[in-house]
Amino acid sequence: MIKLGSIEAGGTKFICSVSDENLHVIAKTRFSTSSPDVMMPLIYQFFQEYQPRAIGIGCFGPIGIDPYSENYGKILATPKKGWDNYPFLEHIKKHINVPVFWTTDVNAAAYGEFWLGAGQGLHNIIYWTVGTGIGAGAIYNGQVLTGLSHSEMGHILVTRSQYDHFEGNCLYHYDCLESLASGPAIERRAGEKAEKLPKNSNQWDLEAYYLAQACVDVAMILSPEKIIFGGGVSNQEQLFPKIRYEYKKMIGGYLEPSPLEKFIVHAQLGNDAGTMGCLLLAKKLIEN
Amino acid sequence: MIKLGSIEAGGTKFICSVSDENLHVIAKTRFSTSSPDVMMPLIYQFFQEYQPRAIGIGCFGPIGIDPYSENYGKILATPKKGWDNYPFLEHIKKHINVPVFWTTDVNAAAYGEFWLGAGQGLHNIIYWTVGTGIGAGAIYNGQVLTGLSHSEMGHILVTRSQYDHFEGNCLYHYDCLESLASGPAIERRAGEKAEKLPKNSNQWDLEAYYLAQACVDVAMILSPEKIIFGGGVSNQEQLFPKIRYEYKKMIGGYLEPSPLEKFIVHAQLGNDAGTMGCLLLAKKLIEN
Repeated sequence: MIKLGSIEAGGTKFICSVSDENLHVIAKTRFSTSSPDVMMPLIYQFFQEYQPRAIGIGCFGPIGIDPYSENYGKILATPKKGWDNYPFLEHIKKHINVPVFWTTDVNAAAYGEFWLGAGQGLHNIIYWTVGTGIGAGAIYNGQVLTGLSHSEMGHILVTRSQYDHFEGNCLYHYDCLESLASGPAIERRAGEKAEKLPKNSNQWDLEAYYLAQACVDVAMILSPEKIIFGGGVSNQEQLFPKIRYEYKKMIGGYLEPSPLEKFIVHAQLGNDAGTMGCLLLAKKLIEN
Repeated sequence: MIKLGSIEAGGTKFICSVSDENLHVIAKTRFSTSSPDVMMPLIYQFFQEYQPRAIGIGCFGPIGIDPYSENYGKILATPKKGWDNYPFLEHIKKHINVPVFWTTDVNAAAYGEFWLGAGQGLHNIIYWTVGTGIGAGAIYNGQVLTGLSHSEMGHILVTRSQYDHFEGNCLYHYDCLESLASGPAIERRAGEKAEKLPKNSNQWDLEAYYLAQACVDVAMILSPEKIIFGGGVSNQEQLFPKIRYEYKKMIGGYLEPSPLEKFIVHAQLGNDAGTMGCLLLAKKLIEN
Protein backbone atom coordinates (compact mmCIF):
# COMPACT_ATOMS: atom_id res chain seq x y z
CA MET A 1 0.00 0.00 0.00
CA ILE A 2 1.28 3.46 -0.93
CA LYS A 3 0.79 5.74 2.07
CA LEU A 4 0.38 9.50 2.07
CA GLY A 5 1.05 11.88 4.96
CA SER A 6 -0.54 15.12 6.08
CA ILE A 7 0.62 17.69 8.62
CA GLU A 8 -1.74 20.49 9.52
CA ALA A 9 0.26 22.84 11.66
CA GLY A 10 -2.21 25.22 13.27
CA GLY A 11 -1.96 27.84 15.96
CA THR A 12 -3.96 25.81 18.47
CA LYS A 13 -3.37 22.23 17.32
CA PHE A 14 -1.32 20.09 15.01
CA ILE A 15 -3.06 17.25 13.17
CA CYS A 16 -1.00 14.48 11.60
CA SER A 17 -2.68 11.96 9.31
CA VAL A 18 -1.83 9.05 7.07
CA SER A 19 -3.99 7.67 4.29
CA ASP A 20 -3.83 5.06 1.60
CA GLU A 21 -3.49 6.16 -2.03
CA ASN A 22 -7.26 6.58 -2.29
CA LEU A 23 -7.15 9.12 0.55
CA HIS A 24 -8.84 6.83 3.04
CA VAL A 25 -7.40 7.97 6.35
CA ILE A 26 -5.89 5.09 8.28
CA ALA A 27 -4.39 7.04 11.19
CA LYS A 28 -4.89 10.48 12.60
CA THR A 29 -3.61 12.18 15.73
CA ARG A 30 -3.89 15.64 17.31
CA PHE A 31 -1.43 17.54 19.49
CA SER A 32 -2.05 20.86 21.22
CA THR A 33 0.36 23.40 19.78
CA SER A 34 3.36 24.21 21.93
CA SER A 35 7.01 24.91 21.14
CA PRO A 36 8.98 23.17 18.37
CA ASP A 37 11.08 21.09 20.76
CA VAL A 38 7.87 19.45 21.96
CA MET A 39 6.00 19.25 18.65
CA MET A 40 8.64 18.09 16.23
CA PRO A 41 9.54 14.79 17.97
CA LEU A 42 5.82 13.94 18.09
CA ILE A 43 5.58 14.46 14.35
CA TYR A 44 8.70 12.40 13.61
CA GLN A 45 7.48 9.57 15.79
CA PHE A 46 4.05 9.46 14.17
CA PHE A 47 5.37 9.23 10.63
CA GLN A 48 8.17 6.84 11.54
CA GLU A 49 5.47 4.35 12.41
CA TYR A 50 3.55 4.77 9.14
CA GLN A 51 6.31 5.56 6.62
CA PRO A 52 4.34 7.63 4.10
CA ARG A 53 5.76 7.98 0.59
CA ALA A 54 5.16 11.76 0.51
CA ILE A 55 3.82 14.43 2.87
CA GLY A 56 1.73 17.56 2.39
CA ILE A 57 2.13 20.29 4.99
CA GLY A 58 -0.38 23.07 5.56
CA CYS A 59 1.20 25.46 8.04
CA PHE A 60 0.03 28.61 9.83
CA GLY A 61 1.57 31.68 8.22
CA PRO A 62 3.24 33.75 7.25
CA ILE A 63 5.68 31.23 5.79
CA GLY A 64 8.43 31.40 3.18
CA ILE A 65 7.27 29.79 -0.05
CA ASP A 66 9.74 31.12 -2.60
CA PRO A 67 12.13 28.24 -3.35
CA TYR A 68 14.79 30.74 -4.41
CA SER A 69 14.70 32.58 -1.08
CA GLU A 70 16.63 31.70 2.06
CA ASN A 71 13.29 32.00 3.84
CA TYR A 72 11.91 29.01 1.96
CA GLY A 73 10.38 26.44 4.25
CA LYS A 74 10.51 28.71 7.28
CA ILE A 75 7.77 30.06 9.48
CA LEU A 76 8.30 33.82 9.34
CA ALA A 77 7.55 36.55 11.90
CA THR A 78 5.10 35.09 14.42
CA PRO A 79 4.34 35.78 18.05
CA LYS A 80 4.03 32.00 18.64
CA LYS A 81 6.75 31.01 21.08
CA GLY A 82 9.67 29.20 19.48
CA TRP A 83 8.27 29.28 15.96
CA ASP A 84 9.54 32.67 14.85
CA ASN A 85 11.89 32.11 11.91
CA TYR A 86 11.75 28.33 12.48
CA PRO A 87 12.97 26.22 9.53
CA PHE A 88 10.06 23.79 9.64
CA LEU A 89 10.53 22.19 6.25
CA GLU A 90 14.26 21.66 6.75
CA HIS A 91 13.71 19.77 9.99
CA ILE A 92 10.94 17.64 8.51
CA LYS A 93 13.09 16.72 5.52
CA LYS A 94 16.06 15.87 7.72
CA HIS A 95 14.01 13.45 9.80
CA ILE A 96 11.56 12.12 7.23
CA ASN A 97 13.31 11.73 3.94
CA VAL A 98 10.39 11.86 1.48
CA PRO A 99 9.04 14.50 -0.95
CA VAL A 100 7.16 17.24 0.92
CA PHE A 101 4.68 19.79 -0.42
CA TRP A 102 4.88 22.97 1.66
CA THR A 103 2.07 25.53 1.74
CA THR A 104 -0.17 27.43 4.13
CA ASP A 105 -3.00 25.90 6.15
CA VAL A 106 -5.62 27.84 4.19
CA ASN A 107 -4.11 26.96 0.82
CA ALA A 108 -4.18 23.29 1.76
CA ALA A 109 -7.84 23.53 2.79
CA ALA A 110 -8.63 25.41 -0.43
CA TYR A 111 -7.00 22.61 -2.40
CA GLY A 112 -9.08 20.04 -0.55
CA GLU A 113 -12.33 21.92 -1.19
CA PHE A 114 -11.37 22.38 -4.83
CA TRP A 115 -10.88 18.70 -5.59
CA LEU A 116 -13.21 17.00 -3.15
CA GLY A 117 -15.60 19.61 -1.79
CA ALA A 118 -17.63 22.52 -3.09
CA GLY A 119 -15.17 23.17 -5.93
CA GLN A 120 -15.44 19.77 -7.59
CA GLY A 121 -15.51 19.95 -11.37
CA LEU A 122 -14.48 23.61 -11.52
CA HIS A 123 -11.30 25.31 -12.71
CA ASN A 124 -10.98 28.33 -10.42
CA ILE A 125 -12.16 28.95 -6.87
CA ILE A 126 -11.52 31.16 -3.88
CA TYR A 127 -11.78 29.49 -0.48
CA TRP A 128 -12.18 31.72 2.57
CA THR A 129 -11.78 30.54 6.11
CA VAL A 130 -13.45 32.81 8.63
CA GLY A 131 -12.71 31.91 12.23
CA THR A 132 -10.07 32.99 14.74
CA GLY A 133 -8.42 34.70 11.82
CA ILE A 134 -9.44 35.24 8.21
CA GLY A 135 -7.52 33.89 5.27
CA ALA A 136 -8.16 32.70 1.76
CA GLY A 137 -6.61 30.51 -0.86
CA ALA A 138 -7.09 30.70 -4.62
CA ILE A 139 -6.93 27.56 -6.74
CA TYR A 140 -6.46 28.42 -10.39
CA ASN A 141 -6.40 25.78 -13.08
CA GLY A 142 -6.04 23.24 -10.34
CA GLN A 143 -2.97 24.86 -8.79
CA VAL A 144 -2.46 26.79 -5.58
CA LEU A 145 -2.04 30.39 -6.76
CA THR A 146 0.94 32.15 -5.24
CA GLY A 147 3.00 35.18 -6.11
CA LEU A 148 6.13 36.43 -4.44
CA SER A 149 4.53 35.03 -1.31
CA HIS A 150 1.24 33.37 -0.43
CA SER A 151 -1.83 35.56 -0.34
CA GLU A 152 -2.88 37.39 2.81
CA MET A 153 -6.43 38.06 1.78
CA GLY A 154 -7.63 38.48 5.35
CA HIS A 155 -5.89 41.83 5.35
CA ILE A 156 -7.62 43.44 2.39
CA LEU A 157 -9.14 46.79 3.26
CA VAL A 158 -12.88 47.11 3.68
CA THR A 159 -15.17 50.08 4.05
CA ARG A 160 -16.52 50.33 7.57
CA SER A 161 -20.20 50.50 8.18
CA GLN A 162 -21.04 53.95 9.46
CA TYR A 163 -22.63 52.24 12.45
CA ASP A 164 -19.52 50.27 13.37
CA HIS A 165 -17.29 52.04 15.87
CA PHE A 166 -15.45 48.93 17.05
CA GLU A 167 -11.74 49.59 17.40
CA GLY A 168 -10.84 46.53 15.33
CA ASN A 169 -9.00 43.34 16.17
CA CYS A 170 -5.95 43.41 13.90
CA LEU A 171 -2.59 44.51 15.25
CA TYR A 172 -1.76 46.19 11.98
CA HIS A 173 -4.93 47.54 10.39
CA TYR A 174 -7.90 49.42 11.76
CA ASP A 175 -10.08 48.58 8.77
CA CYS A 176 -8.97 45.27 7.29
CA LEU A 177 -11.34 42.34 6.88
CA GLU A 178 -9.80 40.30 9.70
CA SER A 179 -9.86 43.32 11.97
CA LEU A 180 -13.62 43.72 11.62
CA ALA A 181 -14.99 40.30 10.69
CA SER A 182 -12.99 37.53 12.42
CA GLY A 183 -14.57 35.50 15.22
CA PRO A 184 -12.71 37.43 17.95
CA ALA A 185 -13.75 40.74 16.30
CA ILE A 186 -17.41 39.71 16.49
CA GLU A 187 -16.95 38.62 20.09
CA ARG A 188 -15.24 41.81 21.20
CA ARG A 189 -17.75 44.02 19.42
CA ALA A 190 -20.81 42.13 20.66
CA GLY A 191 -19.48 41.32 24.11
CA GLU A 192 -20.39 37.69 23.58
CA LYS A 193 -18.90 34.72 21.73
CA ALA A 194 -20.01 34.66 18.09
CA GLU A 195 -21.55 31.18 18.35
CA LYS A 196 -23.68 32.32 21.31
CA LEU A 197 -25.23 35.23 19.44
CA PRO A 198 -28.84 34.84 18.29
CA LYS A 199 -29.34 34.11 14.60
CA ASN A 200 -31.15 37.41 14.19
CA SER A 201 -28.44 39.51 15.84
CA ASN A 202 -27.53 42.51 13.72
CA GLN A 203 -23.91 41.39 14.10
CA TRP A 204 -24.61 38.96 11.27
CA ASP A 205 -25.78 41.75 8.99
CA LEU A 206 -22.56 43.61 9.72
CA GLU A 207 -20.52 40.46 9.19
CA ALA A 208 -22.22 39.85 5.84
CA TYR A 209 -21.58 43.44 4.81
CA TYR A 210 -17.85 42.94 5.31
CA LEU A 211 -17.67 39.48 3.77
CA ALA A 212 -19.62 40.68 0.73
CA GLN A 213 -17.04 43.39 0.13
CA ALA A 214 -14.36 40.72 0.20
CA CYS A 215 -16.36 38.73 -2.35
CA VAL A 216 -16.70 41.70 -4.69
CA ASP A 217 -12.99 42.42 -4.56
CA VAL A 218 -11.85 38.87 -5.25
CA ALA A 219 -14.49 38.51 -7.96
CA MET A 220 -13.28 41.66 -9.73
CA ILE A 221 -9.61 40.75 -9.33
CA LEU A 222 -9.63 36.99 -9.91
CA SER A 223 -12.94 36.12 -11.55
CA PRO A 224 -13.40 32.78 -9.77
CA GLU A 225 -16.18 30.37 -10.68
CA LYS A 226 -17.13 30.01 -7.02
CA ILE A 227 -16.42 31.63 -3.67
CA ILE A 228 -16.46 29.09 -0.85
CA PHE A 229 -16.62 29.90 2.86
CA GLY A 230 -15.31 27.59 5.55
CA GLY A 231 -14.16 28.07 9.15
CA GLY A 232 -16.10 28.37 12.40
CA VAL A 233 -17.90 31.65 11.71
CA SER A 234 -19.12 30.33 8.35
CA ASN A 235 -21.10 27.66 10.16
CA GLN A 236 -23.69 30.36 10.81
CA GLU A 237 -25.90 29.43 7.86
CA GLN A 238 -27.98 32.60 8.20
CA LEU A 239 -24.93 34.48 6.93
CA PHE A 240 -25.15 33.18 3.38
CA PRO A 241 -28.40 34.83 2.20
CA LYS A 242 -27.17 38.03 3.82
CA ILE A 243 -23.79 37.91 2.07
CA ARG A 244 -25.50 37.30 -1.28
CA TYR A 245 -27.94 40.15 -0.63
CA GLU A 246 -25.13 42.59 0.13
CA TYR A 247 -23.07 41.31 -2.80
CA LYS A 248 -25.96 41.92 -5.18
CA LYS A 249 -26.39 45.46 -3.90
CA MET A 250 -22.69 46.23 -4.16
CA ILE A 251 -22.12 44.73 -7.59
CA GLY A 252 -24.93 46.89 -8.99
CA GLY A 253 -25.77 44.52 -11.82
CA TYR A 254 -22.22 44.57 -13.20
CA LEU A 255 -21.24 41.07 -14.33
CA GLU A 256 -23.48 39.54 -11.70
CA PRO A 257 -22.98 35.78 -11.47
CA SER A 258 -26.18 33.84 -11.78
CA PRO A 259 -27.49 32.29 -9.66
CA LEU A 260 -25.74 33.81 -6.66
CA GLU A 261 -26.73 30.75 -4.61
CA LYS A 262 -24.21 28.76 -6.62
CA PHE A 263 -21.54 31.46 -6.59
CA ILE A 264 -21.23 32.16 -2.87
CA VAL A 265 -21.46 28.85 -1.03
CA HIS A 266 -20.62 26.98 2.14
CA ALA A 267 -17.62 24.65 2.20
CA GLN A 268 -18.42 20.94 2.12
CA LEU A 269 -15.52 19.21 3.84
CA GLY A 270 -15.78 20.96 7.19
CA ASN A 271 -12.78 20.28 9.40
CA ASP A 272 -11.44 17.71 6.94
CA ALA A 273 -10.60 20.20 4.20
CA GLY A 274 -7.05 20.74 5.44
CA THR A 275 -6.26 17.05 5.84
CA MET A 276 -7.72 16.19 2.45
CA GLY A 277 -5.81 19.04 0.83
CA CYS A 278 -2.49 17.98 2.35
CA LEU A 279 -3.02 14.35 1.33
CA LEU A 280 -3.91 15.39 -2.22
CA LEU A 281 -0.83 17.57 -2.43
CA ALA A 282 1.28 14.64 -1.23
CA LYS A 283 -0.34 12.42 -3.84
CA LYS A 284 0.42 14.94 -6.55
CA LEU A 285 4.09 14.83 -5.60
CA ILE A 286 4.20 11.10 -6.14
CA GLU A 287 2.32 11.26 -9.43
CA ASN A 288 4.69 13.86 -10.82
CA MET B 1 11.05 37.02 -42.63
CA ILE B 2 8.49 35.76 -40.13
CA LYS B 3 5.97 38.52 -39.52
CA LEU B 4 3.83 39.07 -36.43
CA GLY B 5 0.59 41.01 -36.23
CA SER B 6 -1.02 43.12 -33.51
CA ILE B 7 -4.53 44.52 -33.22
CA GLU B 8 -5.26 46.91 -30.38
CA ALA B 9 -8.98 47.45 -30.46
CA GLY B 10 -9.69 50.43 -28.24
CA GLY B 11 -12.73 52.54 -27.57
CA THR B 12 -11.33 55.59 -29.35
CA LYS B 13 -8.90 54.06 -31.85
CA PHE B 14 -7.76 50.81 -33.37
CA ILE B 15 -4.04 50.31 -33.93
CA CYS B 16 -2.84 47.60 -36.28
CA SER B 17 0.85 46.73 -36.42
CA VAL B 18 3.20 44.27 -38.04
CA SER B 19 6.70 43.41 -36.85
CA ASP B 20 9.49 41.05 -37.72
CA GLU B 21 10.23 38.13 -35.41
CA ASN B 22 12.41 40.36 -33.24
CA LEU B 23 9.44 42.65 -32.62
CA HIS B 24 10.82 45.48 -34.74
CA VAL B 25 7.68 47.17 -36.00
CA ILE B 26 7.69 47.50 -39.77
CA ALA B 27 4.19 48.90 -40.27
CA LYS B 28 1.66 50.55 -38.03
CA THR B 29 -1.63 52.26 -38.72
CA ARG B 30 -4.39 53.90 -36.65
CA PHE B 31 -8.11 54.13 -37.31
CA SER B 32 -10.64 56.10 -35.26
CA THR B 33 -13.09 53.66 -33.76
CA SER B 34 -16.45 53.45 -35.48
CA SER B 35 -18.80 50.55 -36.23
CA PRO B 36 -17.66 47.04 -37.22
CA ASP B 37 -18.74 47.39 -40.87
CA VAL B 38 -16.25 50.24 -41.18
CA MET B 39 -13.44 48.88 -39.00
CA MET B 40 -13.24 45.25 -40.01
CA PRO B 41 -12.50 45.79 -43.72
CA LEU B 42 -9.70 48.19 -42.75
CA ILE B 43 -8.17 45.51 -40.55
CA TYR B 44 -8.45 42.80 -43.22
CA GLN B 45 -6.90 45.06 -45.82
CA PHE B 46 -3.95 45.99 -43.61
CA PHE B 47 -3.03 42.42 -42.79
CA GLN B 48 -3.64 41.17 -46.33
CA GLU B 49 -0.78 43.37 -47.38
CA TYR B 50 1.63 42.12 -44.71
CA GLN B 51 0.58 38.49 -44.24
CA PRO B 52 1.62 37.96 -40.59
CA ARG B 53 2.13 34.39 -39.39
CA ALA B 54 0.13 34.99 -36.18
CA ILE B 55 -1.82 37.83 -34.58
CA GLY B 56 -2.30 39.03 -31.00
CA ILE B 57 -5.48 40.96 -30.25
CA GLY B 58 -5.95 43.21 -27.24
CA CYS B 59 -9.58 44.26 -27.23
CA PHE B 60 -11.68 46.62 -25.10
CA GLY B 61 -13.85 44.64 -22.71
CA PRO B 62 -15.76 42.97 -21.44
CA ILE B 63 -15.01 40.12 -23.83
CA GLY B 64 -15.65 36.38 -23.77
CA ILE B 65 -12.42 34.52 -23.02
CA ASP B 66 -13.64 31.10 -21.98
CA PRO B 67 -12.95 28.77 -24.93
CA TYR B 68 -15.71 26.45 -23.74
CA SER B 69 -18.35 29.19 -23.78
CA GLU B 70 -20.41 30.29 -26.75
CA ASN B 71 -19.34 33.80 -25.81
CA TYR B 72 -15.71 33.03 -26.63
CA GLY B 73 -14.17 35.58 -28.95
CA LYS B 74 -17.08 37.99 -28.64
CA ILE B 75 -17.25 41.52 -27.36
CA LEU B 76 -19.92 41.35 -24.65
CA ALA B 77 -22.36 43.99 -23.36
CA THR B 78 -21.03 47.37 -24.51
CA PRO B 79 -22.66 50.72 -25.27
CA LYS B 80 -20.33 51.06 -28.30
CA LYS B 81 -22.50 51.11 -31.39
CA GLY B 82 -22.45 47.89 -33.40
CA TRP B 83 -20.01 46.10 -31.10
CA ASP B 84 -22.44 44.69 -28.58
CA ASN B 85 -22.21 40.88 -28.75
CA TYR B 86 -19.99 41.16 -31.84
CA PRO B 87 -18.05 37.94 -32.69
CA PHE B 88 -14.75 39.73 -33.27
CA LEU B 89 -12.48 36.72 -33.19
CA GLU B 90 -14.68 34.67 -35.51
CA HIS B 91 -14.62 37.37 -38.18
CA ILE B 92 -10.87 37.86 -37.91
CA LYS B 93 -10.25 34.13 -38.24
CA LYS B 94 -12.55 33.85 -41.23
CA HIS B 95 -10.69 36.57 -43.12
CA ILE B 96 -7.14 36.08 -41.86
CA ASN B 97 -6.48 32.42 -41.47
CA VAL B 98 -3.63 32.39 -38.92
CA PRO B 99 -3.36 31.59 -35.18
CA VAL B 100 -4.80 34.40 -33.06
CA PHE B 101 -4.27 35.15 -29.35
CA TRP B 102 -7.37 36.85 -27.96
CA THR B 103 -7.28 38.89 -24.75
CA THR B 104 -8.20 42.30 -23.34
CA ASP B 105 -6.38 45.53 -24.14
CA VAL B 106 -5.10 45.85 -20.58
CA ASN B 107 -3.93 42.23 -20.41
CA ALA B 108 -1.98 42.73 -23.63
CA ALA B 109 -0.33 45.86 -22.23
CA ALA B 110 0.44 44.03 -18.98
CA TYR B 111 2.10 41.28 -20.98
CA GLY B 112 4.19 43.84 -22.85
CA GLU B 113 5.31 45.54 -19.63
CA PHE B 114 6.08 42.18 -18.07
CA TRP B 115 8.45 41.00 -20.77
CA LEU B 116 9.90 44.23 -22.13
CA GLY B 117 9.08 46.99 -19.64
CA ALA B 118 9.09 47.50 -15.90
CA GLY B 119 8.45 43.82 -15.24
CA GLN B 120 11.53 42.45 -16.99
CA GLY B 121 13.19 39.61 -15.10
CA LEU B 122 10.27 39.11 -12.70
CA HIS B 123 7.75 36.31 -12.30
CA ASN B 124 4.58 38.08 -11.16
CA ILE B 125 3.32 41.61 -11.75
CA ILE B 126 0.15 43.65 -11.69
CA TYR B 127 -0.18 46.29 -14.39
CA TRP B 128 -2.74 49.06 -13.87
CA THR B 129 -3.84 51.44 -16.55
CA VAL B 130 -5.39 54.60 -15.17
CA GLY B 131 -6.93 56.82 -17.82
CA THR B 132 -10.40 57.15 -19.33
CA GLY B 133 -11.18 53.97 -17.44
CA ILE B 134 -9.24 51.90 -14.94
CA GLY B 135 -8.26 48.31 -15.52
CA ALA B 136 -5.49 45.95 -14.58
CA GLY B 137 -3.88 42.79 -15.78
CA ALA B 138 -1.98 40.23 -13.72
CA ILE B 139 0.88 38.28 -15.25
CA TYR B 140 1.70 35.23 -13.15
CA ASN B 141 4.58 32.94 -13.99
CA GLY B 142 4.72 34.65 -17.33
CA GLN B 143 1.07 33.98 -18.20
CA VAL B 144 -1.94 36.25 -18.40
CA LEU B 145 -3.96 35.35 -15.29
CA THR B 146 -7.62 34.75 -15.97
CA GLY B 147 -10.45 33.01 -14.19
CA LEU B 148 -13.93 32.37 -15.41
CA SER B 149 -13.48 35.69 -17.18
CA HIS B 150 -10.77 38.35 -17.35
CA SER B 151 -10.30 40.53 -14.31
CA GLU B 152 -12.25 43.74 -13.84
CA MET B 153 -9.99 45.27 -11.25
CA GLY B 154 -11.14 48.80 -11.99
CA HIS B 155 -14.36 47.93 -10.20
CA ILE B 156 -12.94 46.88 -6.84
CA LEU B 157 -14.52 48.77 -3.97
CA VAL B 158 -12.58 51.49 -2.20
CA THR B 159 -13.21 53.43 0.95
CA ARG B 160 -14.15 57.00 0.18
CA SER B 161 -12.24 59.85 1.70
CA GLN B 162 -14.49 61.62 4.17
CA TYR B 163 -13.77 64.80 2.22
CA ASP B 164 -14.88 63.38 -1.12
CA HIS B 165 -18.52 64.03 -1.90
CA PHE B 166 -18.22 63.54 -5.66
CA GLU B 167 -21.13 61.49 -6.99
CA GLY B 168 -18.81 59.10 -8.82
CA ASN B 169 -18.30 58.34 -12.49
CA CYS B 170 -19.21 54.66 -12.81
CA LEU B 171 -22.63 53.63 -14.09
CA TYR B 172 -22.71 50.71 -11.70
CA HIS B 173 -20.86 51.62 -8.50
CA TYR B 174 -20.83 54.70 -6.32
CA ASP B 175 -17.58 53.72 -4.64
CA CYS B 176 -15.50 51.63 -7.02
CA LEU B 177 -11.97 52.61 -8.02
CA GLU B 178 -12.92 53.64 -11.55
CA SER B 179 -15.83 55.65 -10.22
CA LEU B 180 -13.58 57.81 -8.06
CA ALA B 181 -10.13 57.73 -9.65
CA SER B 182 -10.41 57.57 -13.46
CA GLY B 183 -9.41 60.57 -15.56
CA PRO B 184 -13.03 61.62 -16.16
CA ALA B 185 -13.74 61.26 -12.40
CA ILE B 186 -10.90 63.65 -11.61
CA GLU B 187 -12.12 66.05 -14.28
CA ARG B 188 -15.73 66.05 -13.10
CA ARG B 189 -14.76 66.44 -9.46
CA ALA B 190 -12.20 69.20 -10.07
CA GLY B 191 -14.08 70.94 -12.87
CA GLU B 192 -10.98 70.83 -15.02
CA LYS B 193 -9.16 68.26 -17.14
CA ALA B 194 -6.79 66.16 -15.03
CA GLU B 195 -3.75 67.08 -17.11
CA LYS B 196 -4.47 70.79 -16.61
CA LEU B 197 -4.50 70.56 -12.82
CA PRO B 198 -1.47 71.95 -10.96
CA LYS B 199 0.99 69.37 -9.64
CA ASN B 200 0.21 70.46 -6.08
CA SER B 201 -3.57 70.16 -6.44
CA ASN B 202 -5.10 68.17 -3.61
CA GLN B 203 -6.81 66.09 -6.29
CA TRP B 204 -3.55 64.17 -6.55
CA ASP B 205 -3.56 63.37 -2.85
CA LEU B 206 -7.07 62.02 -3.21
CA GLU B 207 -6.10 60.08 -6.33
CA ALA B 208 -3.13 58.55 -4.52
CA TYR B 209 -5.35 57.62 -1.59
CA TYR B 210 -7.58 55.58 -3.89
CA LEU B 211 -4.79 54.02 -5.95
CA ALA B 212 -2.95 53.03 -2.76
CA GLN B 213 -6.03 51.12 -1.58
CA ALA B 214 -6.02 49.28 -4.88
CA CYS B 215 -2.35 48.45 -4.37
CA VAL B 216 -2.96 47.09 -0.86
CA ASP B 217 -5.79 44.88 -2.07
CA VAL B 218 -3.93 43.37 -5.01
CA ALA B 219 -0.82 42.94 -2.85
CA MET B 220 -2.79 41.04 -0.19
CA ILE B 221 -4.67 38.95 -2.73
CA LEU B 222 -2.01 38.25 -5.35
CA SER B 223 1.36 39.03 -3.77
CA PRO B 224 2.97 40.43 -6.93
CA GLU B 225 6.64 41.33 -7.11
CA LYS B 226 5.80 44.71 -8.62
CA ILE B 227 2.81 46.96 -9.20
CA ILE B 228 3.16 48.96 -12.40
CA PHE B 229 1.06 51.98 -13.37
CA GLY B 230 0.49 53.03 -16.97
CA GLY B 231 -2.17 55.11 -18.72
CA GLY B 232 -2.63 58.85 -19.07
CA VAL B 233 -3.28 59.71 -15.43
CA SER B 234 -0.15 57.80 -14.37
CA ASN B 235 1.95 60.25 -16.34
CA GLN B 236 1.56 62.58 -13.37
CA GLU B 237 4.87 61.67 -11.76
CA GLN B 238 4.01 63.50 -8.51
CA LEU B 239 1.48 60.71 -7.89
CA PHE B 240 4.06 58.03 -7.19
CA PRO B 241 5.57 59.31 -3.91
CA LYS B 242 2.02 60.01 -2.74
CA ILE B 243 0.79 56.50 -3.59
CA ARG B 244 3.76 54.96 -1.78
CA TYR B 245 3.19 57.23 1.23
CA GLU B 246 -0.47 56.21 1.49
CA TYR B 247 0.40 52.56 0.89
CA LYS B 248 2.90 52.61 3.74
CA LYS B 249 0.33 54.14 6.08
CA MET B 250 -2.35 51.64 5.10
CA ILE B 251 -0.18 48.54 5.25
CA GLY B 252 0.85 49.40 8.81
CA GLY B 253 4.17 47.59 8.65
CA TYR B 254 2.54 44.28 7.70
CA LEU B 255 4.65 42.53 5.07
CA GLU B 256 5.84 45.87 3.72
CA PRO B 257 7.80 45.45 0.50
CA SER B 258 11.18 47.10 0.62
CA PRO B 259 12.02 49.43 -0.95
CA LEU B 260 8.58 50.73 -1.92
CA GLU B 261 10.22 52.73 -4.75
CA LYS B 262 10.83 49.43 -6.53
CA PHE B 263 7.44 47.95 -5.69
CA ILE B 264 5.11 50.66 -6.96
CA VAL B 265 6.52 51.98 -10.22
CA HIS B 266 5.73 53.75 -13.47
CA ALA B 267 5.33 51.71 -16.66
CA GLN B 268 8.21 51.89 -19.10
CA LEU B 269 6.74 51.23 -22.53
CA GLY B 270 4.25 54.11 -22.58
CA ASN B 271 1.82 53.85 -25.48
CA ASP B 272 3.74 50.91 -26.95
CA ALA B 273 2.87 48.46 -24.17
CA GLY B 274 -0.25 47.20 -25.94
CA THR B 275 1.43 46.73 -29.31
CA MET B 276 4.42 44.99 -27.78
CA GLY B 277 2.17 42.74 -25.73
CA CYS B 278 0.09 41.71 -28.74
CA LEU B 279 3.18 41.01 -30.83
CA LEU B 280 4.70 38.93 -28.03
CA LEU B 281 1.49 36.96 -27.65
CA ALA B 282 1.50 36.33 -31.40
CA LYS B 283 5.11 35.22 -31.21
CA LYS B 284 4.27 32.83 -28.39
CA LEU B 285 1.63 31.20 -30.58
CA ILE B 286 4.18 30.44 -33.26
CA GLU B 287 6.76 29.14 -30.79
CA ASN B 288 4.26 26.76 -29.24
